[in-house]
Amino acid sequence: MTVRLGIVGVGVMGADHARTIASQVAGAAIHSIYDANQERARQIADEVGAADVAGDPRRLIDDPQVDAVLIASPDATHKELALACVAARKPVLCEKPLAPTSPECLELIEAELAAGRRFIQVGYMRRYDPSYVAMKNHLAAGQFGKPLMFHCVHRNVAAPPWFDGGMAIANSAVHEFDIARWLLAGELTAISIFRPANISGQSPGAPVFLVLDSAGGSLVTIEVFNDAAYGYDVRGELVCEKGTVELQRPVHGVVNHALLQGTAYPLDWRPRFQDAYRLQAQGWIEGIRTGKPNGASAWDGYAATRVAEAGLRSLKSGLREEISAVPVPKLYG
Amino acid sequence: MTVRLGIVGVGVMGADHARTIASQVAGAAIHSIYDANQERARQIADEVGAADVAGDPRRLIDDPQVDAVLIASPDATHKELALACVAARKPVLCEKPLAPTSPECLELIEAELAAGRRFIQVGYMRRYDPSYVAMKNHLAAGQFGKPLMFHCVHRNVAAPPWFDGGMAIANSAVHEFDIARWLLAGELTAISIFRPANISGQSPGAPVFLVLDSAGGSLVTIEVFNDAAYGYDVRGELVCEKGTVELQRPVHGVVNHALLQGTAYPLDWRPRFQDAYRLQAQGWIEGIRTGKPNGASAWDGYAATRVAEAGLRSLKSGLREEISAVPVPKLYG
Amino acid sequence: MTVRLGIVGVGVMGADHARTIASQVAGAAIHSIYDANQERARQIADEVGAADVAGDPRRLIDDPQVDAVLIASPDATHKELALACVAARKPVLCEKPLAPTSPECLELIEAELAAGRRFIQVGYMRRYDPSYVAMKNHLAAGQFGKPLMFHCVHRNVAAPPWFDGGMAIANSAVHEFDIARWLLAGELTAISIFRPANISGQSPGAPVFLVLDSAGGSLVTIEVFNDAAYGYDVRGELVCEKGTVELQRPVHGVVNHALLQGTAYPLDWRPRFQDAYRLQAQGWIEGIRTGKPNGASAWDGYAATRVAEAGLRSLKSGLREEISAVPVPKLYG
Amino acid sequence: MTVRLGIVGVGVMGADHARTIASQVAGAAIHSIYDANQERARQIADEVGAADVAGDPRRLIDDPQVDAVLIASPDATHKELALACVAARKPVLCEKPLAPTSPECLELIEAELAAGRRFIQVGYMRRYDPSYVAMKNHLAAGQFGKPLMFHCVHRNVAAPPWFDGGMAIANSAVHEFDIARWLLAGELTAISIFRPANISGQSPGAPVFLVLDSAGGSLVTIEVFNDAAYGYDVRGELVCEKGTVELQRPVHGVVNHALLQGTAYPLDWRPRFQDAYRLQAQGWIEGIRTGKPNGASAWDGYAATRVAEAGLRSLKSGLREEISAVPVPKLYG
Repeated sequence: MTVRLGIVGVGVMGADHARTIASQVAGAAIHSIYDANQERARQIADEVGAADVAGDPRRLIDDPQVDAVLIASPDATHKELALACVAARKPVLCEKPLAPTSPECLELIEAELAAGRRFIQVGYMRRYDPSYVAMKNHLAAGQFGKPLMFHCVHRNVAAPPWFDGGMAIANSAVHEFDIARWLLAGELTAISIFRPANISGQSPGAPVFLVLDSAGGSLVTIEVFNDAAYGYDVRGELVCEKGTVELQRPVHGVVNHALLQGTAYPLDWRPRFQDAYRLQAQGWIEGIRTGKPNGASAWDGYAATRVAEAGLRSLKSGLREEISAVPVPKLYG
Repeated sequence: MTVRLGIVGVGVMGADHARTIASQVAGAAIHSIYDANQERARQIADEVGAADVAGDPRRLIDDPQVDAVLIASPDATHKELALACVAARKPVLCEKPLAPTSPECLELIEAELAAGRRFIQVGYMRRYDPSYVAMKNHLAAGQFGKPLMFHCVHRNVAAPPWFDGGMAIANSAVHEFDIARWLLAGELTAISIFRPANISGQSPGAPVFLVLDSAGGSLVTIEVFNDAAYGYDVRGELVCEKGTVELQRPVHGVVNHALLQGTAYPLDWRPRFQDAYRLQAQGWIEGIRTGKPNGASAWDGYAATRVAEAGLRSLKSGLREEISAVPVPKLYG
Repeated sequence: MTVRLGIVGVGVMGADHARTIASQVAGAAIHSIYDANQERARQIADEVGAADVAGDPRRLIDDPQVDAVLIASPDATHKELALACVAARKPVLCEKPLAPTSPECLELIEAELAAGRRFIQVGYMRRYDPSYVAMKNHLAAGQFGKPLMFHCVHRNVAAPPWFDGGMAIANSAVHEFDIARWLLAGELTAISIFRPANISGQSPGAPVFLVLDSAGGSLVTIEVFNDAAYGYDVRGELVCEKGTVELQRPVHGVVNHALLQGTAYPLDWRPRFQDAYRLQAQGWIEGIRTGKPNGASAWDGYAATRVAEAGLRSLKSGLREEISAVPVPKLYG
Repeated sequence: MTVRLGIVGVGVMGADHARTIASQVAGAAIHSIYDANQERARQIADEVGAADVAGDPRRLIDDPQVDAVLIASPDATHKELALACVAARKPVLCEKPLAPTSPECLELIEAELAAGRRFIQVGYMRRYDPSYVAMKNHLAAGQFGKPLMFHCVHRNVAAPPWFDGGMAIANSAVHEFDIARWLLAGELTAISIFRPANISGQSPGAPVFLVLDSAGGSLVTIEVFNDAAYGYDVRGELVCEKGTVELQRPVHGVVNHALLQGTAYPLDWRPRFQDAYRLQAQGWIEGIRTGKPNGASAWDGYAATRVAEAGLRSLKSGLREEISAVPVPKLYG
């Protein structure tokens, strides 16, 4: 059985998803594409062999020849589109964030609760990245004992012009919030934020340093530095009682040149997480075919957004902010 | 268009191919499986969702619902099966070696020449490995100048019981022969072989060290050590006029434990070349869909086998053996 | 001119100093040794070729044949012995801590101020470690821009039985306090402390995580984990505007064995900082010969102790604690 | 007891030795310096605090205030000066090569045999390099089993203008000849040489690739590339039955900058072997003080030169050349 997909939004992210699915994912076929820019939609449809260009996202979602939907349109549209997918009872892979605020995320959760089933997967693709998976496997194997600290680093070459300081938390660190919850299998319960004083906090890519508590008692630290200049770099070290595991980014060669022995950093996240995106798409299709979802749920999207909101409060207050516990509905248990 | 595949032979290699294609390759569907062990064929067919289990490999090849064939049966059967594919004018991905001897390889080449088209791809999957591809890209970029030496290391944990010394050349080093030809874009023209004297040459996994000339003037050295014990490890360094590039194996984590900082070696070639196998299968399907083959041809299979034969002569004679030049038919030019 | 030394205390640290100086330091000769255990003193004196075993530390300090003194006796004795050295107007290299409390450190500073000269060097040997020196040189070269964050990790295999949680700060993190002050050329001005909740704070080697501000505006983070089990490991990354520099511990070989590629960690700090100890002793002798001290001064010892005291307050209060600015006397400017 | 030294020749190498000894070596004092350039001799003498500038090397050797002699004058003078040291019964550390030809080396051996004692140490400093020492210790520990192959790489940035192809063997590879003999504790018995054909053999820094047999049965391979451009780089991997050990060059920091994560290569051998030179000087002094020499003997110098001579024959003949066994006199056993 081939899963027929509709894709809403083929900007940079959506087009990447479309190409990955068309060229490297088993069991899926792209049937229809929608983009506000219809010419763009047509062009990507041709490129990936999609039969149809939809004139309206709702029509795409309701198209009986579309089995499942991938949403990569602007953040502000995510909620309405995802609600439409739930209403149509179609599996949906929605790019992060699920919705800009936690109350909006809750609406989606309520829709799923009402429907009595999970339809939504949020695009926290790191859960499929081989280095995070290896880390989780090491932890599960038990050889290192209990996790005590999880140190994360998230660096971009340069913050885009439309970035502001809060986005380091709401757009960048959310990835770490999600992966820490997944890795440590528990909620984050408090957050404190620090900033170096020798760089203007107005500078959109200035570093922030976060310290969080997790429900299981581990400490999580996250550096986000969106103007790190030297390369796109995501690091993580899980410190356990008897040893530690560090992420390793994909490296295909070591170069000896000009008095340096070196390995390359990519300019942005795409080469770093290319495999994660592919495996996420494959895992999503697999989940649809087997009826067993394996990615981040709407609840996960909600939880990460709640941590980000506490982070933004801490950024303002300069204080440690608690993240109150919320009972998890059975559907997501 | 989905390419419908038949797979002949689902032992360790064939079953791996089948699983990879079913779960991770776009644009392909496994239609039919044959194995001398019919129960095994049935079991793998169920696992990968193949409609049919063929009672005979020829019937599978001739089945009109089979668009292309993957051969992973015992080496001795490759030639006849590949000939049948050419006769049926169906694309075939044949596990290496194409055939045990160069005259047998020539038969296949003649069949393709008679048919006026290439149908055969040989399973030299390293050409798709991201680390070799990165090396070739570095070379093409020109920043390092001319290639002067290519040092290769090929180590297995333990030679299988049925191994003999010659297999280090004919079964293991052939991978390096092919990749050196591909990387340096030229034939290998001479070979000398050395062995350490403090380990019995009778020991099937004892090391051999090969020095080869390439037509372009680069020197190629290859260590093959099938009893290397510590892990499966393939290394390569391309030494150019202005710098060098070294392969990097896939590493997903760094572990700190028990007074060591370490990264894991796999037990065998499969995790090391998992991506190469996937990309080879994807590339093969892509080649079929576009009509532009992108892997090792029958000629490449023939050329690697000729180098191996010279290597076996050198192993016996203890001398440097020349590999005479053979004009390349236009079909493979 | 050979500098004739007296060594007070030849326990583990003192004996190591004595052996290093006798076997690897130019321009010094060990003349006299004192230890409360006179037999031990005699034994080490024989080993390193010291002429004399002193029956009393004051006599050693006042011995006209002793040009300079190295103090490696128990912490509680440091202050009185260092005061005696200042009184005798003899250069002294005092193991850290200079004194257990900042008021005691101040007494030593006042003694030097009264004497009008610096005599005291505190054994913060990391300032001589080639990896920290390389980091400081990179910073000075300017290529990376301003330092924004300095991330430090300090891990021991196992806390000694007499350890308590505060010692992670007062005994371990003081090294980072000193090196951060030296590297960033400014005082530390505030400290916050975090601990994972899933390990008993009573456990003497439980991790602590420190976040500090420096006067220059950089953020400093320090993980201290005295029960890290896997090895002795000190890490540091200086994150600047345009790039980062990471410490590299001394590694003399890479081993491939038992499915791992690895490098060794030492059991304790001595192999890690062997070169730093040697270069500190050599630098101290050089400073004596040239009259230009080059190590940590009594003021540096005082400053590090003040940060530690603020850290202990934060550990109790759970709050961020400020470290008030103190004007630096000209002698240490 | 301080060993009073005379140094003959303070060009680049000799001046480096003088500075290292004066500033970092215990138990030695430089008493006298000779150089054909007397002004240079005076300048270095002032710098390192030597009392005397000798007008004649023989006078320096015979000076009763000189206990031992370091020879770093031009190669052609080594033999006569070393003979004078033996005649004066003074320990001598002679830069490599001991003498340009093996018959000349034999003269020195005969002089020592006549004197009934070893006086000569040859400056094969790699024996003191921590990474080679670690490799030898790993081998001695037995965990890896028997050594089967020893792969060496020796690369310089650029061959000096006065270099010729033979010097890659006689000047560069001799270091590997010596270290292989030391590591494997046996003579080298045959040598074959290969060159890439796509670079002019007239080019003085063109690569040579050597394959040698050792008496113990291990295979030794050596790449020498004096025009490697990218940095000074010496590598070695000892491949044993159960694992391998690779040299690690000294690295003090990892830099992340300009889309690269890198570690630095030095421009020449001095930073790479700085520690080896220091430890060689210290070891030589230690050997003099204890009467137990610990470095390369005149016999070792002779043996390395004989391998180089066979290498030059192979370079000319294009054939494998045997190195006949010579009985080792008891003095060197």
